[in-house]
Amino acid sequence: MESFSDRLAKAIQLRKNPVVVGLDPRFRQLPEAIQPAEETPESVASAYRKFCCEIIDVVAELVPAVKPQMAFFEALGPAGMAALFDVVAYAREKQLLVVLDGKRNDIGSTATAYADAYLGVGSAWQADALTVSPYLGDDSLTPFVDAACEQAAGIFVLVKTSNPGGKTFQDRESDGQSIYRHVGTLVESLAAETQADCGYGAVGAVVGATYPEQLVELREMMPHTWFLVPGFGAQGGTAESVRSAFDDRGLGAIINSSRAIIFAHARPEYESLAEKSWLAAVEQATRDMVEQLAV
Amino acid sequence: MESFSDRLAKAIQLRKNPVVVGLDPRFRQLPEAIQPAEETPESVASAYRKFCCEIIDVVAELVPAVKPQMAFFEALGPAGMAALFDVVAYAREKQLLVVLDGKRNDIGSTATAYADAYLGVGSAWQADALTVSPYLGDDSLTPFVDAACEQAAGIFVLVKTSNPGGKTFQDRESDGQSIYRHVGTLVESLAAETQADCGYGAVGAVVGATYPEQLVELREMMPHTWFLVPGFGAQGGTAESVRSAFDDRGLGAIINSSRAIIFAHARPEYESLAEKSWLAAVEQATRDMVEQLAV
Repeated sequence: MESFSDRLAKAIQLRKNPVVVGLDPRFRQLPEAIQPAEETPESVASAYRKFCCEIIDVVAELVPAVKPQMAFFEALGPAGMAALFDVVAYAREKQLLVVLDGKRNDIGSTATAYADAYLGVGSAWQADALTVSPYLGDDSLTPFVDAACEQAAGIFVLVKTSNPGGKTFQDRESDGQSIYRHVGTLVESLAAETQADCGYGAVGAVVGATYPEQLVELREMMPHTWFLVPGFGAQGGTAESVRSAFDDRGLGAIINSSRAIIFAHARPEYESLAEKSWLAAVEQATRDMVEQLAV
Repeated sequence: MESFSDRLAKAIQLRKNPVVVGLDPRFRQLPEAIQPAEETPESVASAYRKFCCEIIDVVAELVPAVKPQMAFFEALGPAGMAALFDVVAYAREKQLLVVLDGKRNDIGSTATAYADAYLGVGSAWQADALTVSPYLGDDSLTPFVDAACEQAAGIFVLVKTSNPGGKTFQDRESDGQSIYRHVGTLVESLAAETQADCGYGAVGAVVGATYPEQLVELREMMPHTWFLVPGFGAQGGTAESVRSAFDDRGLGAIINSSRAIIFAHARPEYESLAEKSWLAAVEQATRDMVEQLAV
C-alpha cells in the first residue's frame, strides 16, 4: 500500500482542502434526532455510532480525513469501544483517512503493543494514523515509527498543544531552546528518515492553531513533518492563524475542527438550517470551513 | 467511600507488603494450559480473561493491588476491551485495588472524559486509579484531580519513567532543574492539596525502579506523593534499589512486577513448580517478591 504520507497528500489534492472533521461525540450535545430514549452505555454507544456514521456520510466527499477522539468512546466502556471500531471501519469504507486521537504511549514492548493495536490495515483498529505522546522519550517512539513504516500508517506526536497549560512543560527553556523545540527536532529527524514522495514523512506533529507564532517557528524548523493542527474554530484558531502551516502546494498540514462542525446545529448562524436537519448544519459548517481553507 | 490513598495504605498494611502484580498478557508467552486453539481476537481475549482472572484468584490474598496494562487488551480490538472490563470487575470483586495503566491525557473537556471514563465506582471502567501523562501541562491534570477527589480514586502521573529513553526530555535541565523535577514539583503540590489521613494524596507519581538515585531525590522532594514504581524484576530493579521509596511505616510506594510474576512458568527457578501448574509458579514468584519487600 502507498505510504500514509502520500495518501494524505493525494486526499488533500483530491478534495482541495486540508480539513479534518473531529468526531468527539458528547451525550448532552447530541442533536435531538440522535438522542437515545434512555441513557445506558449501550444506547449512548449506539447513538454515537449513528451520529458519527451520519456525519461521515455527509463529509466523506468534502474532506480528506476524520479524527475520532477516543476518550469519548472510552467513557462508555466496552460498548463505546465497539462503537468506535464500527466508526473507524465505516470511515475507511467511505475512503476517508482516519486519524485516531488517543495520545497513547508507553515503554518498549508496550509501545509496540499500542503500535500494533492501532496502525494500519493489519492492526486491530485499522487506523491510518494515531496521536502519540512524547514524554517517555526517543525509544518510546521507535516502535511506532517501525510499525508506521511497515503498515503504511502514520503518527502525530504532541509537540505544542493548543491548551493554555501546554506551556507548563512544553515552553520550558533547556539549552537555549524550549522543550517543544527539542521534541520538534526529534520528530523532524524521524520525519526526514521516513520521507515519502510528497516530501513529508510518516511521523507528524501536533501543533495547536492557538499559538500562531510557534506554528511559524516550528514550520520553519520541521520541513518534512506533517502538522495536525487542532484548536481551529471553537478554540479560537482562524484561517489566518494557520496559514503558515502550509507549503506553497497547500500541503504540510491538516486542520481539525470538532465541535464547530459536528455540533453546528447549536450554532446561531446555522439555526435555520438545523430546523430542517442537523446534518444540513453539519454539511454547511464543513463547506464553510473548506472554503476558508481551500487549497 | 474512603479515599483511594487511605484505602491503599490500609491494603498495604493488611497484606504487609506493597507489591502490585502487573497484568500484561502477551499471546506468545501464555502458559500452555491457557493457549487458545485458534488465534482470533475473540479467542485470545477469552484466553487473556481466563489468564488474568486465574492470576487474580492466586494473588488476591497476597498483595494489595493489580495493574492491568491497557495496551495489551487494546491490541485485540473491542473483544480485548470487553475482557479488560471483566478483569477489572473481577479484581475489585476480589478486594484488590486496580490501577489501570493507560498513560492517558488530553486537553480540557477531553481530559474530563478520560477521568470520567476510568476513575472510581461511578465510572465506566471503575478503576481505583489511572496512570496519566503530564506533557499537556497543569490544566490537563485538573479534571483528573477533581474526578479523583469526587470518586475516591487516584492518579499516578509519569514523572521519571523506567526506560533508557526516559532521559530524552525528562532529564533536560531547565532553570537549574530537570524536567522530571518540575513535573514532580507540580505533582507534589497536587498531592499535598489532596492529602488523606495516611499523609499521602490522591495524586501519585510513576518513578522507575531503574533510577535509584532519582528515586531518592524525588522521595525527598515529594513527601505527600504515592510512588508507583515499575521496573522491578525483569527490568532490573531490586529490593535494594527501591528501599528509599518508602517512609518508616513502609508506606509511600507500591512496587510493580509484571513479567517476572505472570510468566513465572518460563523462569528456570520455577521450572519444577511449573511442571505441576503454571499458577503454582505465579504463586511462588509472588510470595518471593512479597518476602523481599515485606513491610
